[in-house]
Amino acid sequence: MKIVLAFDSFKGSMTANEACRAAASGLARLASPPTVIYCPLSDGGEGFAETIRLATNGDIRTLEVTGPLFQPVRAAIVLLDDGATAVVESAQACGLTLVPSDQRAPGTTTTRGVGEMIAAAVRAGATEIIIGLGGSSTNDAGMGLLAALGWRFLDAAGHDLPPVGDSLGQVDSIIPATPPPVRIVAACDVTNPLYGPRGAACTFAAQKGASPAEVQMLDAGLRHFATVCAEHLGVDYSQHPGVGAAGGLGFALLAFLGAEFQNGAELAMRLTGLARHLHGADLCLTGEGQTDYQTGYGKLPASVAACCTAAGVPCVCLSGTLGEGWHDLYRSGFRAILSISPGPQSLDTALATAEPALADAAEAIGRLIGE
Amino acid sequence: MKIVLAFDSFKGSMTANEACRAAASGLARLASPPTVIYCPLSDGGEGFAETIRLATNGDIRTLEVTGPLFQPVRAAIVLLDDGATAVVESAQACGLTLVPSDQRAPGTTTTRGVGEMIAAAVRAGATEIIIGLGGSSTNDAGMGLLAALGWRFLDAAGHDLPPVGDSLGQVDSIIPATPPPVRIVAACDVTNPLYGPRGAACTFAAQKGASPAEVQMLDAGLRHFATVCAEHLGVDYSQHPGVGAAGGLGFALLAFLGAEFQNGAELAMRLTGLARHLHGADLCLTGEGQTDYQTGYGKLPASVAACCTAAGVPCVCLSGTLGEGWHDLYRSGFRAILSISPGPQSLDTALATAEPALADAAEAIGRLIGE
Repeated sequence: MKIVLAFDSFKGSMTANEACRAAASGLARLASPPTVIYCPLSDGGEGFAETIRLATNGDIRTLEVTGPLFQPVRAAIVLLDDGATAVVESAQACGLTLVPSDQRAPGTTTTRGVGEMIAAAVRAGATEIIIGLGGSSTNDAGMGLLAALGWRFLDAAGHDLPPVGDSLGQVDSIIPATPPPVRIVAACDVTNPLYGPRGAACTFAAQKGASPAEVQMLDAGLRHFATVCAEHLGVDYSQHPGVGAAGGLGFALLAFLGAEFQNGAELAMRLTGLARHLHGADLCLTGEGQTDYQTGYGKLPASVAACCTAAGVPCVCLSGTLGEGWHDLYRSGFRAILSISPGPQSLDTALATAEPALADAAEAIGRLIGE
Repeated sequence: MKIVLAFDSFKGSMTANEACRAAASGLARLASPPTVIYCPLSDGGEGFAETIRLATNGDIRTLEVTGPLFQPVRAAIVLLDDGATAVVESAQACGLTLVPSDQRAPGTTTTRGVGEMIAAAVRAGATEIIIGLGGSSTNDAGMGLLAALGWRFLDAAGHDLPPVGDSLGQVDSIIPATPPPVRIVAACDVTNPLYGPRGAACTFAAQKGASPAEVQMLDAGLRHFATVCAEHLGVDYSQHPGVGAAGGLGFALLAFLGAEFQNGAELAMRLTGLARHLHGADLCLTGEGQTDYQTGYGKLPASVAACCTAAGVPCVCLSGTLGEGWHDLYRSGFRAILSISPGPQSLDTALATAEPALADAAEAIGRLIGE
């Protein structure tokens, strides 16, 4: 029996790789242990660069960049063995986990470090940069990233503004820089516009620590910034699907660096060769922290299920929580969808015991399918 | 595909029959719905009489008997169609659910109503009575049952004692009655002796509402009662496995009525014809509220698994909670053991949503096995 393990991370408890390892340890208990293929995945957020590095044996370059609170943080660029492609995970430079929970305020955080990672990738010789979006602490519309690459944003008095979300509403003029000579691919799993009810602030700023009043202010800032940029560039990119990703970082990548948007899950599956791994497999296990109706909108497990359907391999989803609307995902082609939870328990306990719980669930599925 | 549903009750949320119905509703969603055989079961406690009635189309006789707090309660005797066998569920006359939680005190409750049910079964013509033990609120060593059948228990001053746990320590002499002319079978799932560290009081009285000091007093009462009974009968039955069941009710049945002890789960499986139902089945689903190491000691799902192993039918256990030591139950022959919980949640939520959760889990298993 051959089983492909294609888990996403379980936010707050396991990386994608740890989830695959946990499932493998459960399957190893079967009377006839199956052949197990590791294919940890990510749809652009935390773990994106690492899962691609693991799958491709990519080279890693670690550097110090500006963190979300302007503190120094360590970040790693993955260089694929074609010598031309670099993978950058924006969460490493501006992720929410880099901000202590009592300091979370998306008006004060910056994506500057992501721009520094791009510059470093260009210096390393990359001609294509894949940027994973997701898990950010920011709402600066990529102003920080652009500032790191030479753009300047001035207020009405002609002074440089700090590249954070709270500055967006005061941007009066832009002094352009030369875009780096690379092709940029933005990998993300959302289709939100820059501002408005479905925009970056209204959809994501609350979970990054903004109060309702701050959300409104940030949204107004994004709207003002979009107007100034449209005048400066001659094109309004603010409604393009995905520009609201990572606090509007997607907007800067598209409008100023000409990025192409791709679904992060599909990109990760392509780079890690999931379809190839599925060849001749008897089963694929996937899963994530919480599976719900949002999973159907381009999140990783749904993409894995589609890939499995195409390959004729049954796909089982094992997640921490099955939330609102999860049952509709049977339409995405899953053979079965189950929670790994061993019973009613607190979220803290569930997070702390996710590895053995996933091992047990994977074992049960292996016993059902294989024996 | 033919699937046998052989669930126990999920304490606090579903009767065995409701659990079978919930699982069936999940299986009905399959693209090719399986043939489903209902075989709800019980190992002697709450639901015992009803599951046997459902399986045998037994006749039901409802009567009013003395409840655990000496209040009138309705109880039902099931008369099997052999015309000779009656099934009595002791929990209907002395069960913990008949005592409001703020009045729980096993020193003050009585099994008198169980004796009244036996008398009624004899009057109805029964020559064999199967008594399900379990789920009791009592610790009276069956003194109430015996009092209902004519026995008298006197203190040192020659006065009749009230038949409750707190009286046991004061019993000085016994005035015997004639045992009813029936064969008695005690169906239970425990092997505890009457007193001592594994006795009725030390093992079960705390969950019936006794304080640690009361547990000690009740245990001393059981020990004293055992001595008086041994002198009266010429035989000491206090260490026989199972006499500690239902607060020592097992002791009275054995010592005074000559009862035979049988494992409740196996008796229920025999009476409901589980082995016959398993013939030609592709799968059997069982489960209970909590599955843990205790399940291995004669509880229903483990007995069902053994029956399935003998029949060559895979058995899957779907329970509310998987508790300490559950994984060892794979040795009992289960194909898979899973919780129905859709994620971390409170016990109250789990109890309130057990039916849809079991339906979803059964559907997932059906999809894994059958498609």
